[in-house]
Amino acid sequence: MACHNQAYLTKYDMVSDVKPGGTFLLDCAWKPEELDAHLPSKVKKYIANNNVNFYIIDATDIAAKRIGNVKVKNTVLQSAFFALAKILPAAEAVEYMKKMAYKSYIKKGQAMVDLNYAAIDAGADAFIKVEVPEAWKTCADDAPKAPATGTRPALVKAVNELLEPISSMAGDSLPVSAFADNPDGTFQQGAAAYEKRGVAVNVPLWHAENCVQCNTCSFVCPHAAIRPAAMTAEEAAAAPEGTPFAARPVLKTNYKFTMTVSALDCMGCTLCVKACPVTKKALENAEKTVAAEHPEYDAKTAAKEAAKLAAPKIALEMVPQAKGLAQQGAFDYAVAHVAEKPELVGNTIKGSQFKQPLLEFSGSCAGCAETSYARLVTQLFGERMYISNATGCSSIWGGAAPATPYTVNKESGHGPAWCNSLFEDNAEHGLGMYLGQKVLREKLIGYVRELNEMVGEGELKTACENYLSTLDDGKANEAATKALVAAMEASTCEKCAALREKILAEKEYLSKKSIWIFGGDGWAYDIGFGGLDHVLASGEDVNVFVFDTEVYSNTGGQASKASNLGQVAQFAAAGKAIGKKNLAEIAMSYGYVYVAQVAMGADMNQLLKALTEAEAYHGPSLIIGYAPCEMHGVKGGMQNCQLEMKKAVDAGYWQMFRYNPTLETGKLTVDSKAPSADYIGFIKSENRYARLAQTNPERAEALFEKAKENAAAKYQRLEKMSELYK
Amino acid sequence: MACHNQAYLTKYDMVSDVKPGGTFLLDCAWKPEELDAHLPSKVKKYIANNNVNFYIIDATDIAAKRIGNVKVKNTVLQSAFFALAKILPAAEAVEYMKKMAYKSYIKKGQAMVDLNYAAIDAGADAFIKVEVPEAWKTCADDAPKAPATGTRPALVKAVNELLEPISSMAGDSLPVSAFADNPDGTFQQGAAAYEKRGVAVNVPLWHAENCVQCNTCSFVCPHAAIRPAAMTAEEAAAAPEGTPFAARPVLKTNYKFTMTVSALDCMGCTLCVKACPVTKKALENAEKTVAAEHPEYDAKTAAKEAAKLAAPKIALEMVPQAKGLAQQGAFDYAVAHVAEKPELVGNTIKGSQFKQPLLEFSGSCAGCAETSYARLVTQLFGERMYISNATGCSSIWGGAAPATPYTVNKESGHGPAWCNSLFEDNAEHGLGMYLGQKVLREKLIGYVRELNEMVGEGELKTACENYLSTLDDGKANEAATKALVAAMEASTCEKCAALREKILAEKEYLSKKSIWIFGGDGWAYDIGFGGLDHVLASGEDVNVFVFDTEVYSNTGGQASKASNLGQVAQFAAAGKAIGKKNLAEIAMSYGYVYVAQVAMGADMNQLLKALTEAEAYHGPSLIIGYAPCEMHGVKGGMQNCQLEMKKAVDAGYWQMFRYNPTLETGKLTVDSKAPSADYIGFIKSENRYARLAQTNPERAEALFEKAKENAAAKYQRLEKMSELYK
Repeated sequence: MACHNQAYLTKYDMVSDVKPGGTFLLDCAWKPEELDAHLPSKVKKYIANNNVNFYIIDATDIAAKRIGNVKVKNTVLQSAFFALAKILPAAEAVEYMKKMAYKSYIKKGQAMVDLNYAAIDAGADAFIKVEVPEAWKTCADDAPKAPATGTRPALVKAVNELLEPISSMAGDSLPVSAFADNPDGTFQQGAAAYEKRGVAVNVPLWHAENCVQCNTCSFVCPHAAIRPAAMTAEEAAAAPEGTPFAARPVLKTNYKFTMTVSALDCMGCTLCVKACPVTKKALENAEKTVAAEHPEYDAKTAAKEAAKLAAPKIALEMVPQAKGLAQQGAFDYAVAHVAEKPELVGNTIKGSQFKQPLLEFSGSCAGCAETSYARLVTQLFGERMYISNATGCSSIWGGAAPATPYTVNKESGHGPAWCNSLFEDNAEHGLGMYLGQKVLREKLIGYVRELNEMVGEGELKTACENYLSTLDDGKANEAATKALVAAMEASTCEKCAALREKILAEKEYLSKKSIWIFGGDGWAYDIGFGGLDHVLASGEDVNVFVFDTEVYSNTGGQASKASNLGQVAQFAAAGKAIGKKNLAEIAMSYGYVYVAQVAMGADMNQLLKALTEAEAYHGPSLIIGYAPCEMHGVKGGMQNCQLEMKKAVDAGYWQMFRYNPTLETGKLTVDSKAPSADYIGFIKSENRYARLAQTNPERAEALFEKAKENAAAKYQRLEKMSELYK
Repeated sequence: MACHNQAYLTKYDMVSDVKPGGTFLLDCAWKPEELDAHLPSKVKKYIANNNVNFYIIDATDIAAKRIGNVKVKNTVLQSAFFALAKILPAAEAVEYMKKMAYKSYIKKGQAMVDLNYAAIDAGADAFIKVEVPEAWKTCADDAPKAPATGTRPALVKAVNELLEPISSMAGDSLPVSAFADNPDGTFQQGAAAYEKRGVAVNVPLWHAENCVQCNTCSFVCPHAAIRPAAMTAEEAAAAPEGTPFAARPVLKTNYKFTMTVSALDCMGCTLCVKACPVTKKALENAEKTVAAEHPEYDAKTAAKEAAKLAAPKIALEMVPQAKGLAQQGAFDYAVAHVAEKPELVGNTIKGSQFKQPLLEFSGSCAGCAETSYARLVTQLFGERMYISNATGCSSIWGGAAPATPYTVNKESGHGPAWCNSLFEDNAEHGLGMYLGQKVLREKLIGYVRELNEMVGEGELKTACENYLSTLDDGKANEAATKALVAAMEASTCEKCAALREKILAEKEYLSKKSIWIFGGDGWAYDIGFGGLDHVLASGEDVNVFVFDTEVYSNTGGQASKASNLGQVAQFAAAGKAIGKKNLAEIAMSYGYVYVAQVAMGADMNQLLKALTEAEAYHGPSLIIGYAPCEMHGVKGGMQNCQLEMKKAVDAGYWQMFRYNPTLETGKLTVDSKAPSADYIGFIKSENRYARLAQTNPERAEALFEKAKENAAAKYQRLEKMSELYK
């Protein structure tokens, strides 16, 4: 038996299926002498008492350092498994594995095949036999896991009684009565924060001395695992010992600044480090210096030396989880005890990150662009958001009940109300959400008008008037609603007591809500398009965000109408023969739909503008966000997700623009510059295209050339269309 | 009991439910003294033997001549019914009816209310008591109806065994075994020709001496009830006595020309008379003369006098059915015995009408624009057409089984293969039809390639080569396929006998087919749009025709996304608040979809161009045809359907254009001229808009003004877009 993730030892029962005298292989970062301290007592006892042959291997280290690509870790482990299992003679097993590796990876190029060959060779003898101490037989039991605690009793109950058994795979033992609190399928938001899966091998470590407090790292994080905190002197004083602070306070304030990291929630994607401008600059400078001083270095050596040289100047670096864990206390403290500083919050890269994210620790892939977008949306509008979510990746990471990653803020307990709908009717479902709250709110607005007529001059009247004059402005109405509720609760006016009571009974529906319809391209371009079109046409005030991965990601990579010419996908094995559907232009044809295309990694400010404008528009809005995906085979992996977006825009592969119906002139703003980089070079850097060049070079050449022409024409067309809308 | 259509007396058992001594009211054009000759023997016997009080009334005559609007015929009859039935005291009945008339029609204006008041007053005493002759008690039985005959035994069987009992409302008496020929739901095409419903009150009468042989009357006829025939001397000689012929032969030929009319299939819509350029000119001239000579005449008198003056110069006029029936023999003869003259057939108004229509005598409303379009399409491509039809009006008039109006040509027995699909998946269903025949055909093409390799020089090889070189050209391939089949059948080559046999076994799939997807705006803009978009995006060679009535016609007039700003419909009682969806622009966004908007009555040649280009394009095509509908409340009724299209285009209400992806430059041709007529004046002439001006004049003014702006902007946008596509 083999266990490929050390975190599972604590979470699941991994060893009791090993037969006495059997073999157990554990992939871990621990050295033999560290095992006693890290292994759960149950595991140690079972191994020792059952005479288990116990081996460990650090496959991540081998794959990353010896082979040079952490992705082949599984191949290393497979080879180690066969070497130990001895199902076949060792040499024969290696031969079979290499044959299969060739068959599986030749489509991705000989380099990928060679990597796997190296991994097979490396794995065959890279394990270490552990001498099991006699003491393990009788070691003391671990203290039982303490039940979860927190300030939200209903959530705590759900975590202890549902999430815990379900995520340890004991969900089938739950009686029906365990779900008595969830008769309608509603679950408490925020349970994901209790998972603390700790699955990242490496996590970021913040260097206070070099940070410029731009918050870009936090802005790109898909899992909300790295967050700035601005603390008053008192808050800072109460922070856990060793919490690092930047030397200078937050600009124009006295707040002490720290960047907190949750090593247990991080997925190790490295996006934050890649996005850090300080780190990037330091590395670039160091690379230049090394190149100038040591032109004789090969690429690998040069990179190593540059990293060493840059080290004292970087603000973020990836370190093993164990080391990064030292930052957990500060993170947990800030989440639980540091108050939001409203004056720091704003619609900027920096300001948006001083707001509590209301999507955190989801199960999306490491580096996922979708959750980076969605997390940001919750920071801007989350407290008054309703989300209708189409089936697809976003419904999986968004609602893997009972581990709910959408959460509520700590001040008022408000957060996104989230519901998953079917693939084919999500837009309609979201419109229904909108219409439902609209009816309730309009009734209440009527009551407030009555109330306003009824009461004399004074605080309550002012509050009514403020409320009534801000009905259409989400942000202003949120504040006015709070004030109105407070004024109603404080009021002693007797003749309006009954009316106040009626309003207060439904106070949650008073403020303007922000209705969002989320889904992927499979939903928006294909299966749910009929409904999406219908909802956009309706003219109602809903906001649609499309996570455009250009493929059905969640079901294994089938081509959608968002897939592009030449792209290889399921049902398009020979490269898609027709171009990408122009969903944005279709929506623009209505004239009264706000439409934007965005690419976070290419222009974060454009994204912020689009989100803010879309939400403020009193009609339907559609934002299509480019979302590179694990399925794309981005060169270097998903740590380059955000950089890939910039490359896509530079090469003219993706266009950024905003069509705003409220503008009198210049409704269509093209935010992308004219393409400056090589289109074909760009697409060939992604496996979803490169694969075709491998299997069918002639067809690839023809399709890629046509795709390039299409892309150029698309940009020209956009520019011409902006004339059309002048 | 009352019977409001004299044709029903023969078709159904109308009297046997009248109790002895009861009252029977018949609406008919017959005078009392003509009854003996016209009434079926069964009816006469029942009336006489059961002491039935028998009354007749000519409601059409009363409504048309005494009240001035044939539409109130039913109100006349209602009033007569109550006067005779004596359920209420007569005065009270009149009062109730007037109250209801007010309630029902005030939305359509006081004039409409007044018309109904007049009809109520007129109907109350306009019936005539028939003195029932004693002889009726013992009159001789009518000869039994002869069973249908014809040259297609399977169809004849279906007509006699299914159509006859079902359409006399005895379908529920049929045993399951009666459907043994239809186990898969397939019905014989062409059964509608056996219905001969004879429901038109007035039908056209052709005046050979004034006709210029332009065929426009036939071009606009929704029911294919008026058709030109070009006859050889022999054919003309064999024509029924009294068949009128034009003095001069068909241009550049010796064929004798006659315009034939089927009074029994005509619906009396009058479109042909309205479309006749000779008749129109004659009337206009006469009106001018009368106006000049008798300025003192009121409008009604002037119109009457002008009609009298024009009479000797017109080519078509509406006459009572009985008079028009004299033309039936010539029509039936031409259909059955006059051969097509291929050299006269072409893609022109005139030429298209020398081709047998393969949609005839459907149950569509009188004046229906949809069947005018569809009939024309069958004349252009019907022999090699597959039609997938969405649910809606077009599925009702297209497939009211067992009365099938799609038919086959008399030469080869080919005609449209028609199938109705659901509302929500018709485009996909049509794509499936396309893909099915594509697979079959591609297999056969492979066989022909083999055959071509196998045979030596000679007729068969030439036929193979001609076939293979015309694969993508529908018309040319049709001829080449005929030649190939003949050559294969004639061939004696032994070594290729097996191959020939294989090909001939599936010869129907050899030629290029013309795949059409038909549906209304409810389907294309709304319920089936998701699928339509998917099919257009597929790039496959299918043709879509949308009958755009701007409303769900068949289900009673619900608003669709094709409905326009300010239009009153179900679910849009206060006038639709948002504009019409731009389906054409959406389709154009793909770049590889042929897209056209047409309006037959505004530009017949543009329609012909669009149909021909769309069908010839080797990719998806979308044609959106403007189709005024009974639901619109067009001024003067559906006799003005075709004229209304012209008005719509002149006012900028509808735009005509063609987007042809095959063109290198100038892909988008705007065929409409800049609007020259008053937009608001135009829409107010239709009840669907005028109604709003009545019920909510302020809202109407605002919406109409906005609609006018939208229309102007739409035309400008089109012109700018044509720049975009230059």
